[in-house]
Amino acid sequence: MKNHKLGHYCGVVGLFSREPSNIPQDLYFPLFALQHRGQESAGIAYREDDQTVVHKDLGMVSSVLGKYLEKPHSSHAGIGHVRYSTHGGNKKENAQPLVVNSNKGEIAIAHNGNLTNTKELKEELFQEGAIFQTSSDTEVILHLISRCRKDGFHEALMHSLGRLKGAFSMVALHDDSLIAIRDPWGFRPLYIGWKNQKTYLASESVALDMMQVTEYRSVQPGEVIIINQEGESSYFIPRNPREGTHQCIFEMIYFARPDSEIYDSSVHNFRKRIGAALAKKDRELLNSPHPGGDIVVPVPDSGTIAALGYAQHAEIPFEMGLTRNHYTGRSFILPSTAERELAVRLKLHPVRSVIQGRRVFLIDDSLVRGTTAKILVKLIKEAGAAEVHLRLSAPEIRWPCFFGIDIPTRKELISNSLSPEELSKHVGADSLQFLQEEDLKTASGSPGKFCFSCFNGDYPFEVPLRPEARQATPRDKNRG
Amino acid sequence: MKNHKLGHYCGVVGLFSREPSNIPQDLYFPLFALQHRGQESAGIAYREDDQTVVHKDLGMVSSVLGKYLEKPHSSHAGIGHVRYSTHGGNKKENAQPLVVNSNKGEIAIAHNGNLTNTKELKEELFQEGAIFQTSSDTEVILHLISRCRKDGFHEALMHSLGRLKGAFSMVALHDDSLIAIRDPWGFRPLYIGWKNQKTYLASESVALDMMQVTEYRSVQPGEVIIINQEGESSYFIPRNPREGTHQCIFEMIYFARPDSEIYDSSVHNFRKRIGAALAKKDRELLNSPHPGGDIVVPVPDSGTIAALGYAQHAEIPFEMGLTRNHYTGRSFILPSTAERELAVRLKLHPVRSVIQGRRVFLIDDSLVRGTTAKILVKLIKEAGAAEVHLRLSAPEIRWPCFFGIDIPTRKELISNSLSPEELSKHVGADSLQFLQEEDLKTASGSPGKFCFSCFNGDYPFEVPLRPEARQATPRDKNRG
Amino acid sequence: MKNHKLGHYCGVVGLFSREPSNIPQDLYFPLFALQHRGQESAGIAYREDDQTVVHKDLGMVSSVLGKYLEKPHSSHAGIGHVRYSTHGGNKKENAQPLVVNSNKGEIAIAHNGNLTNTKELKEELFQEGAIFQTSSDTEVILHLISRCRKDGFHEALMHSLGRLKGAFSMVALHDDSLIAIRDPWGFRPLYIGWKNQKTYLASESVALDMMQVTEYRSVQPGEVIIINQEGESSYFIPRNPREGTHQCIFEMIYFARPDSEIYDSSVHNFRKRIGAALAKKDRELLNSPHPGGDIVVPVPDSGTIAALGYAQHAEIPFEMGLTRNHYTGRSFILPSTAERELAVRLKLHPVRSVIQGRRVFLIDDSLVRGTTAKILVKLIKEAGAAEVHLRLSAPEIRWPCFFGIDIPTRKELISNSLSPEELSKHVGADSLQFLQEEDLKTASGSPGKFCFSCFNGDYPFEVPLRPEARQATPRDKNRG
Amino acid sequence: MKNHKLGHYCGVVGLFSREPSNIPQDLYFPLFALQHRGQESAGIAYREDDQTVVHKDLGMVSSVLGKYLEKPHSSHAGIGHVRYSTHGGNKKENAQPLVVNSNKGEIAIAHNGNLTNTKELKEELFQEGAIFQTSSDTEVILHLISRCRKDGFHEALMHSLGRLKGAFSMVALHDDSLIAIRDPWGFRPLYIGWKNQKTYLASESVALDMMQVTEYRSVQPGEVIIINQEGESSYFIPRNPREGTHQCIFEMIYFARPDSEIYDSSVHNFRKRIGAALAKKDRELLNSPHPGGDIVVPVPDSGTIAALGYAQHAEIPFEMGLTRNHYTGRSFILPSTAERELAVRLKLHPVRSVIQGRRVFLIDDSLVRGTTAKILVKLIKEAGAAEVHLRLSAPEIRWPCFFGIDIPTRKELISNSLSPEELSKHVGADSLQFLQEEDLKTASGSPGKFCFSCFNGDYPFEVPLRPEARQATPRDKNRG
Repeated sequence: MKNHKLGHYCGVVGLFSREPSNIPQDLYFPLFALQHRGQESAGIAYREDDQTVVHKDLGMVSSVLGKYLEKPHSSHAGIGHVRYSTHGGNKKENAQPLVVNSNKGEIAIAHNGNLTNTKELKEELFQEGAIFQTSSDTEVILHLISRCRKDGFHEALMHSLGRLKGAFSMVALHDDSLIAIRDPWGFRPLYIGWKNQKTYLASESVALDMMQVTEYRSVQPGEVIIINQEGESSYFIPRNPREGTHQCIFEMIYFARPDSEIYDSSVHNFRKRIGAALAKKDRELLNSPHPGGDIVVPVPDSGTIAALGYAQHAEIPFEMGLTRNHYTGRSFILPSTAERELAVRLKLHPVRSVIQGRRVFLIDDSLVRGTTAKILVKLIKEAGAAEVHLRLSAPEIRWPCFFGIDIPTRKELISNSLSPEELSKHVGADSLQFLQEEDLKTASGSPGKFCFSCFNGDYPFEVPLRPEARQATPRDKNRG
Repeated sequence: MKNHKLGHYCGVVGLFSREPSNIPQDLYFPLFALQHRGQESAGIAYREDDQTVVHKDLGMVSSVLGKYLEKPHSSHAGIGHVRYSTHGGNKKENAQPLVVNSNKGEIAIAHNGNLTNTKELKEELFQEGAIFQTSSDTEVILHLISRCRKDGFHEALMHSLGRLKGAFSMVALHDDSLIAIRDPWGFRPLYIGWKNQKTYLASESVALDMMQVTEYRSVQPGEVIIINQEGESSYFIPRNPREGTHQCIFEMIYFARPDSEIYDSSVHNFRKRIGAALAKKDRELLNSPHPGGDIVVPVPDSGTIAALGYAQHAEIPFEMGLTRNHYTGRSFILPSTAERELAVRLKLHPVRSVIQGRRVFLIDDSLVRGTTAKILVKLIKEAGAAEVHLRLSAPEIRWPCFFGIDIPTRKELISNSLSPEELSKHVGADSLQFLQEEDLKTASGSPGKFCFSCFNGDYPFEVPLRPEARQATPRDKNRG
Repeated sequence: MKNHKLGHYCGVVGLFSREPSNIPQDLYFPLFALQHRGQESAGIAYREDDQTVVHKDLGMVSSVLGKYLEKPHSSHAGIGHVRYSTHGGNKKENAQPLVVNSNKGEIAIAHNGNLTNTKELKEELFQEGAIFQTSSDTEVILHLISRCRKDGFHEALMHSLGRLKGAFSMVALHDDSLIAIRDPWGFRPLYIGWKNQKTYLASESVALDMMQVTEYRSVQPGEVIIINQEGESSYFIPRNPREGTHQCIFEMIYFARPDSEIYDSSVHNFRKRIGAALAKKDRELLNSPHPGGDIVVPVPDSGTIAALGYAQHAEIPFEMGLTRNHYTGRSFILPSTAERELAVRLKLHPVRSVIQGRRVFLIDDSLVRGTTAKILVKLIKEAGAAEVHLRLSAPEIRWPCFFGIDIPTRKELISNSLSPEELSKHVGADSLQFLQEEDLKTASGSPGKFCFSCFNGDYPFEVPLRPEARQATPRDKNRG
Repeated sequence: MKNHKLGHYCGVVGLFSREPSNIPQDLYFPLFALQHRGQESAGIAYREDDQTVVHKDLGMVSSVLGKYLEKPHSSHAGIGHVRYSTHGGNKKENAQPLVVNSNKGEIAIAHNGNLTNTKELKEELFQEGAIFQTSSDTEVILHLISRCRKDGFHEALMHSLGRLKGAFSMVALHDDSLIAIRDPWGFRPLYIGWKNQKTYLASESVALDMMQVTEYRSVQPGEVIIINQEGESSYFIPRNPREGTHQCIFEMIYFARPDSEIYDSSVHNFRKRIGAALAKKDRELLNSPHPGGDIVVPVPDSGTIAALGYAQHAEIPFEMGLTRNHYTGRSFILPSTAERELAVRLKLHPVRSVIQGRRVFLIDDSLVRGTTAKILVKLIKEAGAAEVHLRLSAPEIRWPCFFGIDIPTRKELISNSLSPEELSKHVGADSLQFLQEEDLKTASGSPGKFCFSCFNGDYPFEVPLRPEARQATPRDKNRG
């Protein structure tokens, strides 16, 4: 079955301990805290007896790595990875970290993101005779480093990173050093924290909180931090000074855990702000202090915080009118005999006593294909709602992402076919509003630092758009 | 690791279809909706080719039964069961349904509840030569039916049920008939619903909703309903007319899903009422319209609805100040090397930006040993809370349950050792209030129909209390 | 796929150790040595902390029980079982040992054999109210013991055993006692051996050899031996003195391992004798010292020893002209898309350089349906054999077995349809001879002590023949 | 536990079908027939929809690949591999076939053998920037091909193969072509066969027999055969014309299945010849037509055919005096608590009635560490043998192998420490004889074409002997 929510690619963690430590166990807990960033595969690599040991497989953190908690290990450094399945491919070969031997020593890399110049780099490496065993960008990076004629690993690394375009928040092991790498555009988050004799890396701050790390900061866009027994050093990838920062706004809207801090901002507070912005817009439209609903109901868990923001701003009661059955999980595989609607019913269930007779403001984060929204509106109306007003805490998604988010083709994005009014009818709602891009920018605090390209198609640099994507969509035409 | 939340024993479903139907698939979805009632084992039994086929094993519904969805089956009747592990025993042998051949035909039973006169019945059956292959009450019931000298299954069934004391909401197959059974005291919920040619049974209404069944009612205390191709008939177990109804109030407080209806009442509305009752009490105590906190934060998901009720009544903002990582699930097994605190951290994480500097009303459903509460208060204070006021939407638990809930010994129940004031200090809170038993009774609407024995020790009939439980506890003594 | 070799039901082992010992490990090795007696399920039951612990599951000894070798256990007594699948049913419920609680204490039984009066006993027990959770005879025995009104376990056991008809070589645990039981007719083998402080029980002597036990004997027909800390006592099941001993001759021909002793006789020597008897017959028929073949080739491993006997007596070279690929194992599951012939090819492969141009005496143990023989003759002719003379070291099988061997219906037994001459043509051989029943009797040494009913239909007592089996078969008619 | 028999590295199969065929199924059966060449991992790669699909994992053929038989596949070409574990490493990463993308297209390789110049090649590739993800020689070959500056795959392949030293019988896929490759020295066997529209490749002829292929020949040393829709072409790797052929004689003595043809010779006939040569030697030594034993007993299955040769030549009865329990398999994992002797007892069991009082000639293929032989002699003496004369159908092994056989260090090879007379005492035998190297050469027919280096240290070219191996062993010294 197709994914009906947007998917992100991965989460990463890293750890360097000055004293010997049980690294597999120390990595397990922060990686577990990032499970929401990828449920397809999990893996860790760590140094033991001057070698890099790797354990990785398809599956969740607990099933893949739980067994390595039983025995003690003595190590100084390690990295970990969780991966989300894209392109329908769940191949073992693509599980990370990827570990290789090279003339620059043993290197292990765990990568979150997506390169945009892979094709060119791969072609060049092919010509020079490189062989590829996986389909991941990570292998390309390792080839670049290994082939670089510069003397020494550090020079080769910095030179190779300078050749990459796209999103890469990475953690790496090079022999006994731990390395944090974030691309110059800062597409994906990456955090570094310190506690006692240990330095931690993680995609989101929640993984550091798990280890009670309280001193932390965001790795800066373009920053490369090398940590080993000699100390810690920070470098920056050389770049075009006119290119700015382009942090993914969707991490704030949907991907990151609400209890995380990323990009030096609280995700929770951001979501409350965009919920409030939706309510403010409704008030303006109606020219009335109350937008005319009886209750505000979130689609849990993705819409919960924005719904709270909406309810508080609109002064309408917040109610848990939809219950989520968490046993399904995001990775639930629907039996082939059942239908999409049944899948939604298994996961989300309206509370009749809350809904019945009420005018409901239903808050979700975004609309991709519109399928789930249509079923949800139906369920809530069946439960007796007088009216259903759908509000989305993201603007209309109209362009694919090249920086690590799994967005379908332009054609499949329903906002390229239907206007909000048409969509409202299509899903059976009484009204439907998206967050305005301007309101999102305001909520972000510093819009110049974020990437909004999935909403407006303004990519920070040239991207490999498919010909199909370059054609006008029905709505482009209508508007044209 | 010990259970730190109360556990219930089981959930059951049943289905009779006048037309041949794919019963394994038809049972899968409602059983899935009851997964919260038991994650240790799952099983179904259904009729096929004049035989009773059973599939059961340790594990969750999807892993045990998912594989039976692939092929078509043609059947008229089946039952299903999910089981929660008690007594530390997770034996395959105890998975249900239990299926036997007897002189009364083939019988399959799935049981939710706990008998109180098992020991006497077992002794009597032993003397007569019965052999026991499991440690479940269900086997006792099957022996009774089989040995009964009455002619015919129906007479033997009714006679045998008349001999049972305790809690039993059961679904059974007898040859091609489906049977619903609820004990005369009504301890555990059981629902019956009709849709087209099908009659459904389930512990909670949410399982019927899953199949879009809209016509349903509670099976009455003492009612036995037999459903087959001839039609449906209702009987009642003979009983002492002076014994009333004793429905488990804890199902309403904590066990049942909030989106369910049980005992003909909405669980969601009930939880909002008890949340509001807590707020009302706080207002009275303070003689003030506002109890003096800045935000109301639930312990998700068990405290969420009561917290909403509290917030709305107290007119203090409701905030999701604790995030729950659902990947842990209720069945998470903690690696032996880690500590209890780490287990709580893996599951619940404070949102610093919500908590910091605030006076927090923290709402949970109940206190058993007090261990989790102590860790949670610590986490929230670490996140910067100015004050933490713990509110519990159940009264103090002081007595064991004999009707299907896994409550520790009196000694382990912390409310037998510490008064609320002492407990508040013990867990590090700034104040702590339990729901008053009187307020709970008021919220229940018809207190005469419910069992409150875990709070007050007033059991509806004699129960096999261990000698230890008959002794006065520290608080009994203090008060004495 | 249907079984193309005859199957036996089970193998059993038992152990009592006066000193505490690691019983799970002590049972593993002898049980492993009996793996050929059953590959469907394996199990052990042993006493630990005054309880009977049981581990059993579908699968081979190593996969089911290997994991229990890792930890130390301290125990005095245990039993083990391997089971062969009959009736197409591989249900977990039927795995043994079967363990129950009864008014006579905890009893565990592992059973090799088949009762003939199960139906009557079950009917009687049904009427009295017994419930049946498995389809095994063992449960019937446990019910009988439990219901027996005699005082004490020992009296109840002996009384119950006296009511059984059929084959039962059993090992049992009753609380802390180990018990060996062999039916009065002695259908199935059972051995007892002593070494240091330990007493061992096993179906075949090879399992005792494994533990370097050198003092052993056959448990006598009808003997019941009870072993515990008080010592060892032997009893005999009361019986009709006119009924003789009826040991299964097929154990000697095919089932038992050739390196075993059973019935106080060497299996290897017996098989050499019947091979020689076949050769002697050929000499007589041809009135010539050499029967006119170039080489003697066994169907490995079932025909190997008889082929050696044949070759030595006939003075024709013995050659391994067929190689067996042991990776298939007896339990190989053929993929549905492939054919029966491919299954034989995967398992048995002719050695062209041995076969080509030769007149081959091909020796196998018996013919059931004739399917495999037909394919083998084809394979050997394809490999260039000049002639193929098939010799079977058993007489024609024409009757079903009721004592623990899985023989198809009379109709499916090809010797009920075709005479040896017709069969020879049917399988494509140049000649075909069965062992003569008289020669088998002579080889057995004491024919009065063996059961030959599958060859001649002379059952030792009345058996539940199906109506179909009472009708004349084509060959009965032809001869009639 | 250490391997007590010599191990070989691998077996390979390949198939090209002019018509679309179910390649996964077509490869399964021949690969199954080569299971004896490797039980650690299994894998196949085949072309489907213009891509190379690979399935490989740790485990046996049936468990790893059985599941791919269920569905139909349409393909033209595929290869397969079974792998034996060496160096104690059973890493998933080393399972084959290895599949890569390169500038020469998609290449999949399955390799049997061992290179001797890996270190030099790897060093060179490292310097050029190659990265290594496995520890296998195969990856080195793929790097060579990919980096080769020659135009086109074919030129690059031939050039790269010319740089390899050592043993390599390989099957490969290059896009839609199937390729057979055998090193110029011919160390490992490789066969090609034709049937209808299909061309098969396999390590041994038995795999071709499985598919009823009757037209086949050995791929010649140095031959490279490319098979695709255009036809089939044969090339030869350029080589030093003075270097001869060095086929591994141990394949004939022990590794290959007796029902196989390799090197254009029947393995079965060869083994009978060396058995006869042992008997001839005994006759000469004793100057008597009969060497003075009562029976000839093989260590099954490795000594069976040589024992037959011995018995027929010596005119002493051949007897199956040792029974092998095939459930152990070659891959049996001994529980850590048990001893080596128990492992032998689980696998091989003497037949007392055959052994007792007899003078036994015990025939095995070779002696490595002498441990198993010592236990076997003990077992046979315990079973009552009057005398045990051990005969080995291989000469004394004194040197490591660099061409694909897992032989321990010189120090561990017992024939470097003890003379045959000393060894005879060491293992407790009454006499002990090895096959004479001269007799082995005679039996081989064309000794100039075989490698005997493990017996005499005469390697065909320089090999990377460890310093330890260059030192004189105790027996070198004694003799020196």
